[in-house]
Amino acid sequence: MIKTDILIIGAGPTGLFAVFEAGLLKMKCHLIDALPQPGGQCTELYPKKPIYDIPGFPEILAGDLTKNLLEQCKQFEPGFTLGERADTIEKQEDGSFIVTTNKGTKHQAPVVAIAGGLGSFEPRKPLIANIGYFEDKGVEYFIKDPEIYRNKRVVISGGGDSALDWSIYLSDIAKEVTLIHRRTEFRGALDSVDKVQELKDAGKINLVTPAEVINIVGDHKVEAVVVSQALNIEKEFEIECDHFIPLFGLSPKLGPIAKWGLEIEKNAIVVNNALDYQTNIPGIFAIGDVNTYPGKLKLILCGFHEATLMCQAAYQILNPGKRYVLKYTTVSGVDGFDGTRKEAPKQVVKAID
Amino acid sequence: MIKTDILIIGAGPTGLFAVFEAGLLKMKCHLIDALPQPGGQCTELYPKKPIYDIPGFPEILAGDLTKNLLEQCKQFEPGFTLGERADTIEKQEDGSFIVTTNKGTKHQAPVVAIAGGLGSFEPRKPLIANIGYFEDKGVEYFIKDPEIYRNKRVVISGGGDSALDWSIYLSDIAKEVTLIHRRTEFRGALDSVDKVQELKDAGKINLVTPAEVINIVGDHKVEAVVVSQALNIEKEFEIECDHFIPLFGLSPKLGPIAKWGLEIEKNAIVVNNALDYQTNIPGIFAIGDVNTYPGKLKLILCGFHEATLMCQAAYQILNPGKRYVLKYTTVSGVDGFDGTRKEAPKQVVKAID
Repeated sequence: MIKTDILIIGAGPTGLFAVFEAGLLKMKCHLIDALPQPGGQCTELYPKKPIYDIPGFPEILAGDLTKNLLEQCKQFEPGFTLGERADTIEKQEDGSFIVTTNKGTKHQAPVVAIAGGLGSFEPRKPLIANIGYFEDKGVEYFIKDPEIYRNKRVVISGGGDSALDWSIYLSDIAKEVTLIHRRTEFRGALDSVDKVQELKDAGKINLVTPAEVINIVGDHKVEAVVVSQALNIEKEFEIECDHFIPLFGLSPKLGPIAKWGLEIEKNAIVVNNALDYQTNIPGIFAIGDVNTYPGKLKLILCGFHEATLMCQAAYQILNPGKRYVLKYTTVSGVDGFDGTRKEAPKQVVKAID
Repeated sequence: MIKTDILIIGAGPTGLFAVFEAGLLKMKCHLIDALPQPGGQCTELYPKKPIYDIPGFPEILAGDLTKNLLEQCKQFEPGFTLGERADTIEKQEDGSFIVTTNKGTKHQAPVVAIAGGLGSFEPRKPLIANIGYFEDKGVEYFIKDPEIYRNKRVVISGGGDSALDWSIYLSDIAKEVTLIHRRTEFRGALDSVDKVQELKDAGKINLVTPAEVINIVGDHKVEAVVVSQALNIEKEFEIECDHFIPLFGLSPKLGPIAKWGLEIEKNAIVVNNALDYQTNIPGIFAIGDVNTYPGKLKLILCGFHEATLMCQAAYQILNPGKRYVLKYTTVSGVDGFDGTRKEAPKQVVKAID
């Protein structure tokens, strides 16, 4: 059982900044995210795209924003349960909550903050009858740890940035990379498309287009995929491989959270925006894109504000009756849980003679 | 008469970010500030101090945050009335407001957003009977344009960072700089104190301590100050000068805004935080540290959120009945009023053969 002060569901920008604000109030956080790394859609969907409306950054790449937020909160030592989806929540007699993931990991905290963005990202799966059987047996929809593909034969399918970028990345690690796409045209960053062309010309990526994987072959694990060239049944053939990675994009789903008894409106969780972004269940908050209220804007900067106000209310739950006096970081500095201290250079009182 | 879409009172971080958010919605802004430059207390009180709780910046100097925000909003060409205090507001028949400053400058806009921080910064004035007579005749409480002191004889009084830093700065420009302080000890950044010691030793700053200016002498303009050494009436003497600049700090005052008919609570303006941060007077909003509501935190990041939601409501006032659909800057880019365009690199659709 993982125990913490605030259990944050969703490790996107809002969840990460909540760690920092909670830390200023001496509260510890643990984050659960269905994606294999922190950053939410900023990291998973558009790490190399610029955002122009983060206050103080005329332009920042989404991936860099994530890096900065991780750096900003790291002194408060957040815990992470990554690649797992928060599935169930049970209220305990002492008022705390136990949240269990789809892989059975259990977490306990007096306060739960849902910072789930548009929902947990579920992969779009190709329509292959037996694909479910091979999940975790050689079929992966996310690349969690590229090292597992070292010296393996990998088939990637898809025609977007993920398929292009991972083909490029794995061409250096895997024994063999085959990229399969149902068109000859790819849609992605120009330099990624050009790089795949170059690696294909150099014989480092096998390109099979236009084609589709229509079946998976194997005894307990992936041994080959059956490919149909141009949907022409006469041109079916097998490609031997150890892994099949379909990268057809992610689609966010509110998922199991929708059954937690929270008030939901238009696929978002209704919160009290006039006070603390608490949901209809006391002790459960919703912050960032996952919540809704009159005038709600799904902007990262709004999530930052909501996370900050949520932490004040969480402090009251964790420290009933105790009064917290807001201190400014510029004045009082920041004391990390890891023993680090940041502070403004002190003023001196010194005579001039 | 200066006309604009949103008249922003206060050019601190919240006001500057409001310019950016308004610009995304094609609304023009004009800002009024009592200080001689934008940035509010970040620039005036602690430009060289780090802030640790701006989301995405593990650490940023307050002065740099101001620079970044100016850069972020400059494409939306904000207008500025600086060094003037918003004094009166009159509602017009067409629903717009006319705001007049203490120097008589008039501004008209359908929407007014008060982003006044802790209030307009009023200088703490020394107790010198005739000082009022010499204001704008050689006595200045702010340094607006250092160039006016070129080759002049300047007397600065005060013992903090402003007095130290301006003495250093003007020692290069003015013909003669005298620094007067009632103690021998100064309170400020170590390098500033050391630099003044160095300039004093080099004969570039005249230091008179412990001493006070007790009178100003002159016919229509400052010609000399009378200094009392160690409050010893026997040791009074005159220092001839063209300017006397008392830098005894600023104290924020809600000031004339308090008489605009707005609902005030504990020196802050009550707003509807459940919707759009509008005050009790429709069309007048209050954002950032100047407002109050249940759970209010006086943090810069909260001002950013409030500014953003205020702009949505302002859009409805300026474009009645028109529906605005939120666009993400990453997706749609940013079109400046100055003809510039920022956008993410386009994806391509390209065949690999």
